[in-house]
Amino acid sequence: MPSRQDLANAIRALSMDAVQQAKSGHPGAPMGMADIAEVLWNDYFSHSPEHPDWFNRDRFILSNGHASILLYSLLHLTGYDLSIDDLKQFRQLDSFTPGHPEQGHTPGVDTTTGPLGQGLANAVGMAIAERTLAAQFNRPGYPVIDHFTYVFLGDGCLMEGISHEVCSLAGTLKLNKLIAFYDDNGISIDGEVKGWFTDDTPKRFESYGWHVIAEVDGHNPDAIINAINAAQESPFPSLICCQTIIGKGSPNKEGKESCHGAPLGSDEVHLAKLSIGWNEDAFDIPEDIYAKWDGKAAGKQRFQAWATLMKAYTDAYPQLAYELQRLSLGELPEHFPSQIDGFIYELQQSADPVSTRQASLNTLDRIGPLLPELVGGSADLAVSNLTLWKGAQAVTADMPEGNYLHYGVREFGMSAIMNGIALHGGFTPYGATFLVFMEYGRNAVRMASLMQQQSIFVYTHDSVALGEDGPTHQPIEQLTSLRNTPGLETWRPCDAVETAVSWKAALVRTDGPSALVLSRQSLPPQNRYPSQIKEIEKGAYILSDSETHPDLIILATGSEVSVAMEVKALLTGHNVRVVSMPSTSAFDRQDADYKEKVLPRAVTDRVAIEALHPDFWHKYVGLEGLVIGIDQFGKSGPGEKVMEHFGFNAGKIRERIQRHFSDRY
Amino acid sequence: MPSRQDLANAIRALSMDAVQQAKSGHPGAPMGMADIAEVLWNDYFSHSPEHPDWFNRDRFILSNGHASILLYSLLHLTGYDLSIDDLKQFRQLDSFTPGHPEQGHTPGVDTTTGPLGQGLANAVGMAIAERTLAAQFNRPGYPVIDHFTYVFLGDGCLMEGISHEVCSLAGTLKLNKLIAFYDDNGISIDGEVKGWFTDDTPKRFESYGWHVIAEVDGHNPDAIINAINAAQESPFPSLICCQTIIGKGSPNKEGKESCHGAPLGSDEVHLAKLSIGWNEDAFDIPEDIYAKWDGKAAGKQRFQAWATLMKAYTDAYPQLAYELQRLSLGELPEHFPSQIDGFIYELQQSADPVSTRQASLNTLDRIGPLLPELVGGSADLAVSNLTLWKGAQAVTADMPEGNYLHYGVREFGMSAIMNGIALHGGFTPYGATFLVFMEYGRNAVRMASLMQQQSIFVYTHDSVALGEDGPTHQPIEQLTSLRNTPGLETWRPCDAVETAVSWKAALVRTDGPSALVLSRQSLPPQNRYPSQIKEIEKGAYILSDSETHPDLIILATGSEVSVAMEVKALLTGHNVRVVSMPSTSAFDRQDADYKEKVLPRAVTDRVAIEALHPDFWHKYVGLEGLVIGIDQFGKSGPGEKVMEHFGFNAGKIRERIQRHFSDRY
Repeated sequence: MPSRQDLANAIRALSMDAVQQAKSGHPGAPMGMADIAEVLWNDYFSHSPEHPDWFNRDRFILSNGHASILLYSLLHLTGYDLSIDDLKQFRQLDSFTPGHPEQGHTPGVDTTTGPLGQGLANAVGMAIAERTLAAQFNRPGYPVIDHFTYVFLGDGCLMEGISHEVCSLAGTLKLNKLIAFYDDNGISIDGEVKGWFTDDTPKRFESYGWHVIAEVDGHNPDAIINAINAAQESPFPSLICCQTIIGKGSPNKEGKESCHGAPLGSDEVHLAKLSIGWNEDAFDIPEDIYAKWDGKAAGKQRFQAWATLMKAYTDAYPQLAYELQRLSLGELPEHFPSQIDGFIYELQQSADPVSTRQASLNTLDRIGPLLPELVGGSADLAVSNLTLWKGAQAVTADMPEGNYLHYGVREFGMSAIMNGIALHGGFTPYGATFLVFMEYGRNAVRMASLMQQQSIFVYTHDSVALGEDGPTHQPIEQLTSLRNTPGLETWRPCDAVETAVSWKAALVRTDGPSALVLSRQSLPPQNRYPSQIKEIEKGAYILSDSETHPDLIILATGSEVSVAMEVKALLTGHNVRVVSMPSTSAFDRQDADYKEKVLPRAVTDRVAIEALHPDFWHKYVGLEGLVIGIDQFGKSGPGEKVMEHFGFNAGKIRERIQRHFSDRY
Repeated sequence: MPSRQDLANAIRALSMDAVQQAKSGHPGAPMGMADIAEVLWNDYFSHSPEHPDWFNRDRFILSNGHASILLYSLLHLTGYDLSIDDLKQFRQLDSFTPGHPEQGHTPGVDTTTGPLGQGLANAVGMAIAERTLAAQFNRPGYPVIDHFTYVFLGDGCLMEGISHEVCSLAGTLKLNKLIAFYDDNGISIDGEVKGWFTDDTPKRFESYGWHVIAEVDGHNPDAIINAINAAQESPFPSLICCQTIIGKGSPNKEGKESCHGAPLGSDEVHLAKLSIGWNEDAFDIPEDIYAKWDGKAAGKQRFQAWATLMKAYTDAYPQLAYELQRLSLGELPEHFPSQIDGFIYELQQSADPVSTRQASLNTLDRIGPLLPELVGGSADLAVSNLTLWKGAQAVTADMPEGNYLHYGVREFGMSAIMNGIALHGGFTPYGATFLVFMEYGRNAVRMASLMQQQSIFVYTHDSVALGEDGPTHQPIEQLTSLRNTPGLETWRPCDAVETAVSWKAALVRTDGPSALVLSRQSLPPQNRYPSQIKEIEKGAYILSDSETHPDLIILATGSEVSVAMEVKALLTGHNVRVVSMPSTSAFDRQDADYKEKVLPRAVTDRVAIEALHPDFWHKYVGLEGLVIGIDQFGKSGPGEKVMEHFGFNAGKIRERIQRHFSDRY
């Protein structure tokens, strides 16, 4: 009969073997956290290896993602579809066991981790989603949403600033079903952390309103059990501080940074196995140990109990159950596309100028009541971002059933929490800040793209036209950064109609994130035929064509589309086409015919107008085209004056076109 | 005789008037912090308004930069070269009083603030610079470097993650001359912060090892005086928690978010002035109040006392004094350029392949002993970034005289601390992380560029070739983001010689930041004539020319330069030129003749090879050129296999060239 120690040593053995075989990886943390993982997964973790997508499963986040082999070992041992051969392929091209855990790639991986601190933030988002779904859907006797979110983290996660942002908010929101295990091993890549990390971490987390269980022996199963029991009972989020020895079991390397991020070496693996009493060949796990780890039967039982509960819930609350299922599948209401299309056609009738941030709020006011899945928010800029629509109700510690998060001044935390909400399922998060402060949360935008999660990032104040706040607040290079992020769909609409279409596109796009880039200042509405309205979602379309074949094409986005139209009006007697291009990535996906129709290859006289960094536009106007952009930092002053200063004026642009194309226009 | 209250009210009046006149701005925080500012600036702040660049002045950082009018009022009242007319031009185009304080633009502004939390981080950097300079240069009886760094901050700064990173490190380093004033007014843009910010801030800062002075009445001068006295005596950094009323003095708006970010309105300004007993017209300050505020005479005295001390120090320690002056002026040692040139020519003789990160370390080993101004560091990746050169010695709490900072896993904190060190003067900071994690610190890179500070950002692991760590760690879109940052010089060298030239360029460039983008993997050395070596610093040069006029130009950077050379070798019988382009921004600054020489306009068959996002390269190859890049996320696997997977193989590229250019090659 294998002991707990034997079970934990199976993780240690697999971790050592896999890293050794891959000739790279991180054996230290998996060996150090093996005992904690063994207790959590065997005694507490409510999952079903054969149903990795079970909606009410506990979530498990390895925020110290470099310890991936720990997670792979757990998934393999408990019976997920991850074979020993998969483990042998650790860190190899196209294997199911990549260097860091990748959600959507390996069954049982709840989020992609590696960039430190973000897993913890995702976990906070999952805990928010769980609590809010539970508040909205559970009924007496029917706890259909009821699970914990567990997260492992290391010193690195705790040093990262994002840990502050999200743990502070988790404390305010009293996310009691969030339980974090801190692998307090005193070692990071550079060596003993006491040279650069001397926080009193328990005190720090108490200052956030967490329940802290300090000084837990991370190699003592009873101590771990007591801590988890206390954490589950607490009305606050819990931090279990586990004192561990990195590389535990390696006689010559345990407790040292040398086992953090490199194979132990075959000699030391041999010695370590001797030391822990592990007598098997590499990748061999005795049958009795497999049997003890196997979580399939218990998992199936849990899953089936929940299915039975859901069945009874469906009988008792058919509409709620229908809605919960729709949300959990991430499907829009059946009539939503036609409803928003109706709204879009309505908007086309309006002649009032409006900022696209206001147009976004108007859209939210219209679609919000149709979409209970929307969970909005802003990083303390609700009145500027205009994200607080009429039906928005704050999610708080006491009222978790709302649909709006006051994230506070925490852009990175917000963005990564949004990803956690999306990953959990049940909600579609949108969250806002100024475009320039996208940078604070930048890597979470990238992670949303990598994980193909439907986070909707709303970025207002999208150019120097924001005015007086000056260069620190005025974006220049940020839009290119969004556009070059693989898998992110970026929209910069030019008026209310394009704004509503952008929202529609972002909502329909359930397999990836979108960024909506919106103006502070009012923009005039553009005229369109119905056929043009349909083409907006193709990312670029002919807004105003020349009478005959075009000689000159002007491309523009957002606030510069109206400028482009004015420039065209000044170029009387010339065949000028204006192309509005709200989403370059959407356009890039169109077929060759459509692209040729909008941007005929033969027309090489091209001008792009966008009050942001110009370099990107050579992709569409080439070496010989003209880009009217801004390649320096902005200036503080009233918005119109700043735009004028940077030459965004139809007359000046007309002159530049004339000069650039040798007086042809 | 004006009372303290009258003096503080002068700030309130100017703040209300300026915001009212500008029709935008933030009156709340200036009115709330007026009493604190009055005490600090009149009783403690060691500065000289007529010598705003005095090296040993106290530093003052307004981390809540939106309160800029508070700082402008202080500068005006104490006698800096900032007139009442300048204040009337608040937030107007090209005025000296932009929306947020801009270092280098307005005399007396020690750093540019606005992006929350970064001012605090800059302050930490300044306090590090002060302490380390003092440790290196002060001698018994000659405290030539001896000043405080004061920082004002609000709830926003404290919510931002970067506040955690830098305050944690400040505690570890025991930066006792750093004194922060927390404007605890309970209000942020979205309203009362208790809905989203419930930290026990004193406890949090105690957990970092700070000396916390809690519950100070921010409107009681005696309480403020007691707090500052205690802070100056403390052996730890101090946080003075000031309870204030936002918009203090405005009868209808004080204590409410409505006074945070908008003018009070002329009626309310009138009522507020009545309420505080201020009877002057807008922008009028009574002479006796000006006289009390005037800091010129006392400042001159301080400055002259220090000049006298420096004179005596120069007599006693001429060499130290010479070196301190050189450092404070930011000048390189006279012979440095020729020394590094010698090293570069030496490197050209070597035939050994080396990674450019290793080449960077080799360069540091050579130049480190010549440049005591270098203060290095890494965000816990020293062994990967290879930043820890032979002479590197850690700066610690007990040994502040070192030249290397273990920043811990704090990329954003590191980057903004580097900016603070650069802003202080005396040192040239370099700091490293993986290229992809540049994103965590991204906005500080932007701020270095905006402030034209010589921060040298070292980014290793610069492509998917880093291998097994996979897509979370593999950069794709990051290089474009750096290249599009106005004022940042980005280098991606191809071998040891180009790496040393990149370091030289970054060191010579004292008026702006540089980013060095380096490979994990070994790269072969390229052959060069002396004339070519000289051209590297132009950013792009002909590495290998065709026998006659080129038909095809291949542009490449970094690890892809050797691939380009292999491709050329496969294209026998064609006139192919290979251009190595380590810095596109440096190249863009060259004169038209040089650009035409390297990239003749007539040659339109162009190929760019770079294992990062391709879009950028259309700037140089146009619509019809071919870009070999990666427009999707990377993959985990051995580096060579990943590169092969993405087509970075001379044979495959040759085929793509053939196809793209219709079999012409």
